[in-house]
Amino acid sequence: MAAAILKLYSLAKPTIGPVIENGFYYDFDNLTISDSDFPKIEKEMKSLVKSWTSFEKIEVTADDAKKTFKDNPYKLELIEELEKKGEKITLYESGKFLDLCRGGHIDNPKDIKYFKLLSIAGAYWRGSEKNKMLTRIYGTVFPTQKELDEYLKTQEEAEKRDHRKINKQLKIYMASDDIGQGLITLLPNGAAIAQELEKWAIETENKWGYVRVYTPHIVPEKLFKTSGHVPYYVPSMFPPMRMSEKDKEDNEIYYLKPMNCAGHHMVYKSEPRSYRDLPLRIAEYGAVYRFEQSGELLGMMRVRGPIHQNDAHIFCTEEQAEEEFQKVMELHEYYYNTLSITKKDYFLSFATRDPKNKDKYTGDDAVWEKAEKIALKYIEKTGIPYKTEVGGAAFYGPKIDFNIKTVTGKVFSASTNQLDFFLPEAFGLTYIDKDGKEKTPVCIHRAPLGAHVRFIAFLMEHFAGNFPTWLTPVQVKVLPITERHLNYAKKVADRLKEEGIRVELDERNERLQAKIRDAQFEKVAYMLIVGDREEKEGKVAIRKRNGEDLGAKKLNEFASTIKKEIEEKSII
Amino acid sequence: MAAAILKLYSLAKPTIGPVIENGFYYDFDNLTISDSDFPKIEKEMKSLVKSWTSFEKIEVTADDAKKTFKDNPYKLELIEELEKKGEKITLYESGKFLDLCRGGHIDNPKDIKYFKLLSIAGAYWRGSEKNKMLTRIYGTVFPTQKELDEYLKTQEEAEKRDHRKINKQLKIYMASDDIGQGLITLLPNGAAIAQELEKWAIETENKWGYVRVYTPHIVPEKLFKTSGHVPYYVPSMFPPMRMSEKDKEDNEIYYLKPMNCAGHHMVYKSEPRSYRDLPLRIAEYGAVYRFEQSGELLGMMRVRGPIHQNDAHIFCTEEQAEEEFQKVMELHEYYYNTLSITKKDYFLSFATRDPKNKDKYTGDDAVWEKAEKIALKYIEKTGIPYKTEVGGAAFYGPKIDFNIKTVTGKVFSASTNQLDFFLPEAFGLTYIDKDGKEKTPVCIHRAPLGAHVRFIAFLMEHFAGNFPTWLTPVQVKVLPITERHLNYAKKVADRLKEEGIRVELDERNERLQAKIRDAQFEKVAYMLIVGDREEKEGKVAIRKRNGEDLGAKKLNEFASTIKKEIEEKSII
Repeated sequence: MAAAILKLYSLAKPTIGPVIENGFYYDFDNLTISDSDFPKIEKEMKSLVKSWTSFEKIEVTADDAKKTFKDNPYKLELIEELEKKGEKITLYESGKFLDLCRGGHIDNPKDIKYFKLLSIAGAYWRGSEKNKMLTRIYGTVFPTQKELDEYLKTQEEAEKRDHRKINKQLKIYMASDDIGQGLITLLPNGAAIAQELEKWAIETENKWGYVRVYTPHIVPEKLFKTSGHVPYYVPSMFPPMRMSEKDKEDNEIYYLKPMNCAGHHMVYKSEPRSYRDLPLRIAEYGAVYRFEQSGELLGMMRVRGPIHQNDAHIFCTEEQAEEEFQKVMELHEYYYNTLSITKKDYFLSFATRDPKNKDKYTGDDAVWEKAEKIALKYIEKTGIPYKTEVGGAAFYGPKIDFNIKTVTGKVFSASTNQLDFFLPEAFGLTYIDKDGKEKTPVCIHRAPLGAHVRFIAFLMEHFAGNFPTWLTPVQVKVLPITERHLNYAKKVADRLKEEGIRVELDERNERLQAKIRDAQFEKVAYMLIVGDREEKEGKVAIRKRNGEDLGAKKLNEFASTIKKEIEEKSII
Repeated sequence: MAAAILKLYSLAKPTIGPVIENGFYYDFDNLTISDSDFPKIEKEMKSLVKSWTSFEKIEVTADDAKKTFKDNPYKLELIEELEKKGEKITLYESGKFLDLCRGGHIDNPKDIKYFKLLSIAGAYWRGSEKNKMLTRIYGTVFPTQKELDEYLKTQEEAEKRDHRKINKQLKIYMASDDIGQGLITLLPNGAAIAQELEKWAIETENKWGYVRVYTPHIVPEKLFKTSGHVPYYVPSMFPPMRMSEKDKEDNEIYYLKPMNCAGHHMVYKSEPRSYRDLPLRIAEYGAVYRFEQSGELLGMMRVRGPIHQNDAHIFCTEEQAEEEFQKVMELHEYYYNTLSITKKDYFLSFATRDPKNKDKYTGDDAVWEKAEKIALKYIEKTGIPYKTEVGGAAFYGPKIDFNIKTVTGKVFSASTNQLDFFLPEAFGLTYIDKDGKEKTPVCIHRAPLGAHVRFIAFLMEHFAGNFPTWLTPVQVKVLPITERHLNYAKKVADRLKEEGIRVELDERNERLQAKIRDAQFEKVAYMLIVGDREEKEGKVAIRKRNGEDLGAKKLNEFASTIKKEIEEKSII
């Protein structure tokens, strides 16, 4: 690519051009081009590559290299650095093209056939904004046309489905350094989805025998010492709040909670428990915060907070643990089926302790062995394929994670099911068994809908923004054909609002086509177009977001159809 | 009282006996009595007081005083302290009773007629646990029998209704130093109430045109500087979290939010706004934290957190402000009426800036005058009586508070309605008006259900724990007469659970009377007693928590009655 650029744009100055994941880029100074120049450059690349016979390595002294690149200050800077470090300096030559290069090439340049230039971006020299802005050209190359095509198609799909891109249309969330790095605000559309998920989880888990609590978002250090979060989990926690700054007498130190475990164990402990009380399933829509490195943050997929979790801790006897664990797997299945998440969309991982790194975990060997054995038995019973991930366990026990992939190919844990023999003991939890003896319960940690922000991001990509109606932020938009129909449109909107449907009215003085285009862009589930005829007949003309025209129906008929669709959580 | 005690228990040693709010106490060493001795003591007090003619003051030297109290080490310690401080030492004598006393008595001992001993408690000498435990006797006295009776009746009522006492029966919340001073955990019964309130607020405010958001619980210092929370509100905030402790490059400082204002202003600012978007009513069930002095904490009434607030900020034009403000008052009325909170249960306060202490507030005089004038106009329009509270304003504007009284007579702000001309300007919020000009919106801060923990505490006292059925944590308890009826009882419970009713089953092998007694103690709304006849006829025998017997009804009939009662939020 660099050779082609130099042939076509003789004033351009090549700087650095490395290989990256799935392709390459090259940064140029003194080059002004656009995407529309790509075909011309690609043509030149094809022609050049055909004429090349090899990548010829030439080892040179720093002085020789400086002479060769005397007109290119960027290359000169690189050469001087290599010289200082005492490294060998190599050039590579192909045809008439000579570049400073560390080397590592394929044998025959003629094999470079299936490539494509992808995009142009601005980039500072050496990544520092103090330096000059250069022109970066991205490209990719594959051994076969088929692989290139597949990659391009996946990329195209991915770009469209990336939750950060969909967010521009749907306005689900807001993130900015002004409100804090990695901190997410759910805008009204995102809040609507979060609320639906929360409502669903509450209803479902009420039926499945859970009770709910609200615990504080901050936890005293002493409790986190009991739980083992201090010291094991401190690197993933926000910095502490020291009460002595408020009151010299008060030496409490609080941490923003990264998990709800401590609070739920304290709820268990608030009363004497008997075997009759077990299993005790304590659920909370708790908001937790975690410290992630700024470079790791990714949209709503990896955030610092607030991480609203559909969380629960199930306290049970050891005999009940297997059935409870199984039930959690079934609960996952129910949630996933309802959302049309199939086994091709996720895989299980069985995260065990790293036996070479035992100081990262609490508890003794015998209990770890027991916990891992039991967890593995349960996983195998589910019949779902799994991968073992040595060293991925929580500090208090093995984890079974449900992992999902983002459209850009990154893997995230969507939810978890953990078997814990440690924390109940650490907190001194007990129950009186049938035989009158005091025993320690087992704890299952689970959060089938995971962190809501991550789950919503996953659903945005899973549905490409076309949520099932019950989750669609704006379920109906009423579009009056002209201002004359505004009154009837208002009546339609009010009627649906009364039914609890999320409806908006497009009151703008715009042409119908513009209103339809905007509503489709916002991915509203149904557009109701109302004009003279609809008003006269008490009807609405129904259009789906994919453009499908469902014709005119009585308003009441539409209302009951959409209500049924919402109640049944239909996938449309 | 001390004279009577000494006459009856000659070995008792009097120590200190001060006046307190609504009465007095006296601490004795070497005295072992119980409540049942009160009548005897009171009788002796009556007889003594009749024989007394005066409280005679005797000024003495320290040496003389020491001689007088040579057998009482407590009095000797007090005398030595007075001596050290160089204070006058006075004794008072009535009849044969002589005590060390600073003085301040009524003229005639014979006027002491209407008194009552109230309780006994243990108390350390000088309040230090290093000292000996003494016996403290509390009593009260009033000028008339009527006042005494009224006080005793109020106390009796209050004691029963105190939310901390009701909590022992209903298990609404948990608070302990282990989970942090002033930090509240809502147990399943409390969570059920909080969820009902939240659901109600969401449904209601959807209908009233609010949108909802989720904002982070932590806010960077820079945003709180913009809002003015730093410096004005810092004393009421938790200590900061310094990110530099995690990452040297990161100099962000976060505070746990004490209010949702900053987040909601940022949501407004996330998009360009036009007059068409206003009023924009942004609501959140936000959890905030405030630093309260430990001595000020009181059950769920005054806590440090989490304070889940039914909060919202209404952004509107100045012309819309009056109508929006009025609507907030109406929303309060709707909420209060539904909960049978009448005008005798609350009063309004109009909290203004303290003009002598202007540095506690942001903004300039002209805007404060305008804001206070408008707020006052709106209050007067409502016709509800109000008190003006100079200096009670928020730092950003005048407040209208809805104040409630606890059963123990303490006044708390239950909710608030605030008019704010400052924050929108501080955050640089704008909208494009009809005339194409950029203008600054007005903000109304409001939280009609206030802090949920405080509101729930108020409702516990308001209903004396007998919540309307929709808010009752356990709405139905099924009581099988014998183990033989357990199967049918389960069917009854399952059927009601399916309808979304919160139901429990008493599976214990106890006598029916014990089951009824316990269910009444827990204040469940309905007990369903099932035996042979009920099972045969598909019926349930219904009993209310006040003991009223509603007879046997078909299960379906009961289900639809209670569902209607819940849906209509009936006061029963």
